[in-house]
Amino acid sequence: MSENEQRSAVSVIGLGQMGTRLAQAFLAAGHATAVWNRTAAKADALVAQGAVRAETAEAAITASPLVVVCLPDYATALELLGPVATSLRGRTLVNLTSGTPEEAARMAGWAAGHGADYLDGAAMSGTRLVGRPEALFVFSGSPETFAAHRWVLASLGNATHLGADPALAPVYDTALFGLAWGALAGFYHSAALVGASGVDPSTFAAVATGHMPFVVSLMAEHARQIGDGRFPDDDGTVEVHAAAMRHLLDTSRAGGIGTDVPQLFSDLLDRAATAGHAASGIASVIETIAAGERNA
Amino acid sequence: MSENEQRSAVSVIGLGQMGTRLAQAFLAAGHATAVWNRTAAKADALVAQGAVRAETAEAAITASPLVVVCLPDYATALELLGPVATSLRGRTLVNLTSGTPEEAARMAGWAAGHGADYLDGAAMSGTRLVGRPEALFVFSGSPETFAAHRWVLASLGNATHLGADPALAPVYDTALFGLAWGALAGFYHSAALVGASGVDPSTFAAVATGHMPFVVSLMAEHARQIGDGRFPDDDGTVEVHAAAMRHLLDTSRAGGIGTDVPQLFSDLLDRAATAGHAASGIASVIETIAAGERNA
Ligand SMILES: NC(=O)c1ccc[n+]([C@@H]2O[C@H](COP(=O)([O-])OP(=O)(O)OC[C@H]3O[C@@H](n4cnc5c(N)ncnc54)[C@H](OP(=O)(O)O)[C@@H]3O)[C@@H](O)[C@H]2O)c1
Ligand SMILES: NC(=O)c1ccc[n+]([C@@H]2O[C@H](COP(=O)([O-])OP(=O)(O)OC[C@H]3O[C@@H](n4cnc5c(N)ncnc54)[C@H](OP(=O)(O)O)[C@@H]3O)[C@@H](O)[C@H]2O)c1
Repeated sequence: MSENEQRSAVSVIGLGQMGTRLAQAFLAAGHATAVWNRTAAKADALVAQGAVRAETAEAAITASPLVVVCLPDYATALELLGPVATSLRGRTLVNLTSGTPEEAARMAGWAAGHGADYLDGAAMSGTRLVGRPEALFVFSGSPETFAAHRWVLASLGNATHLGADPALAPVYDTALFGLAWGALAGFYHSAALVGASGVDPSTFAAVATGHMPFVVSLMAEHARQIGDGRFPDDDGTVEVHAAAMRHLLDTSRAGGIGTDVPQLFSDLLDRAATAGHAASGIASVIETIAAGERNA
Repeated sequence: MSENEQRSAVSVIGLGQMGTRLAQAFLAAGHATAVWNRTAAKADALVAQGAVRAETAEAAITASPLVVVCLPDYATALELLGPVATSLRGRTLVNLTSGTPEEAARMAGWAAGHGADYLDGAAMSGTRLVGRPEALFVFSGSPETFAAHRWVLASLGNATHLGADPALAPVYDTALFGLAWGALAGFYHSAALVGASGVDPSTFAAVATGHMPFVVSLMAEHARQIGDGRFPDDDGTVEVHAAAMRHLLDTSRAGGIGTDVPQLFSDLLDRAATAGHAASGIASVIETIAAGERNA
């Protein structure tokens, strides 16, 4: 055993934009943190903040029971960890590298083959908020492994366990990215629309952000409807929303702005109506998405 | 003067789905409320709850200094109010009927012509939440008029004044509807995507709703960027998001679900890149929306 072994609570391998913020958050929460990066100079600032410099990737692994890697992709992670895999035995590897569900499943199997516990993970809130409670980090893999390290992982932000299947983190990563884009595309379109009437974007944002808690409450309510497969019309019918959407399209055209965003919503509503959901609640549009009619 | 005059704090004309909830909210907040509906029976339950029944629309107007109308459209409102317009003199008319900015501007002029103060308004959160603080009601028109009645209007929920131009309420109404649909379309697509991996919609919603405060914080931040016309890459560049969007498209295809939703986002990003924003922050996509390139 090297004299470095288990001297830190957590090690971070890969000190790019994200890895650096991860290490800073662990340090800020008071955890002894070992760090390694291919280009050693990127560790300097962290070492000045109290991190322990590992001279090699292997030394970083042996320094802590919990090893967090954050690299560009899974191929790079496997290439780096492959030669030092035996040192992972008995430790927990947390992979915050972005990838696919298949890659996560394969990596989990690879780690198990080397006697390591494994959590896949994804950072959902960019680098700016890391360490703050609103920064969502999702993890998947053994619940016991997550429970054992939850306390340290919570230094990163809102550390959420998704389930035992390691593929869940990349699945949610992609899905939450799509969710965010929906909200942002809606916001950009609306900001452009009110802009055509001379409304300043931040003035609009103040009202828009105040409206979002209501929209978010609809997501929870509509999720229940989707689970039940029943779509009551309490939030308006497909037909009523389709009419309002035609008004949004007209107003957008009249304002001289693009119509792609409301056109998509209009198409989704029209397809739901055609599928027999004209008098159903709007959450019924999920059926035409889930059916993948446009993939034919 | 009839003996009914000014005996109530507020009158509600039009007791459909929305008008009934408005009257209930005023009553619940302890305001003496007069009500009138074309089909008189719809007032019965409200009268049982303490509302004062007005026998005619004119009696409803003269009963209170504040008259709220909620009818299917502006044409109906004008048809109903036209013959009794003189009774509006010195009162405040608040119109919570949905319409266009042009209709609101015309109605404001009509009210002014009859010596009435006027606020246009829109109910943004459906009927279910009326009376709760998360129910957004937007109003536009004279700030003094709003200030004078804010206390009563706040019984409806989050009563927000948008500005002096009466057309603003319908402008925001349409814009906030588009914003909500963006978030919901993103949610439906994502719920379908995780559903293809066997994730239950409410399980996903619990995580998704926890992620939304971050997304909402991006709206406020991006609004500032849009106002400045400068798009820093702190939340990732157009190029990086376009690559992640291709991954969402692939995953959606692989899951056998529709791709229209991510395809729109991908198109927006590709257009921004083509317009020279590949290395800009993602809020730069608003320029291609505002330019209305697809309207040609
Ligand atoms: N940045 C974000 O906002 C963000 C948000 C969510 C998720 N992520 C994910 O986090 C992961 C890392 O992203 P990042 O933004 O931190 O990337 P980055 O800033 O480009 O950093 C990449 C890191 O990987 C290292 N690296 C690259 N190739 C290597 C190799 N062959 N051997 C050893 N080390 C190698 C680099 O070391 P050198 O310094 O020696 O080049 C650097 O430390 C990615 O999967 C990304 O998708 C990032
Ligand atoms: N419901 C919602 O969730 C919601 C949400 C946001 C905005 N809004 C807006 O609120 C307004 C009212 O909607 P609603 O859902 O309450 O409609 P509704 O349930 O269909 O009620 C319509 C009301 O208008 C009355 N009316 C119709 N034609 C009339 C006429 N010629 N003369 C007198 N009264 C007449 C009806 O009286 P009778 O009972 O005699 O037919 C009824 O009281 C609309 O502009 C709608 O867009 C509604």
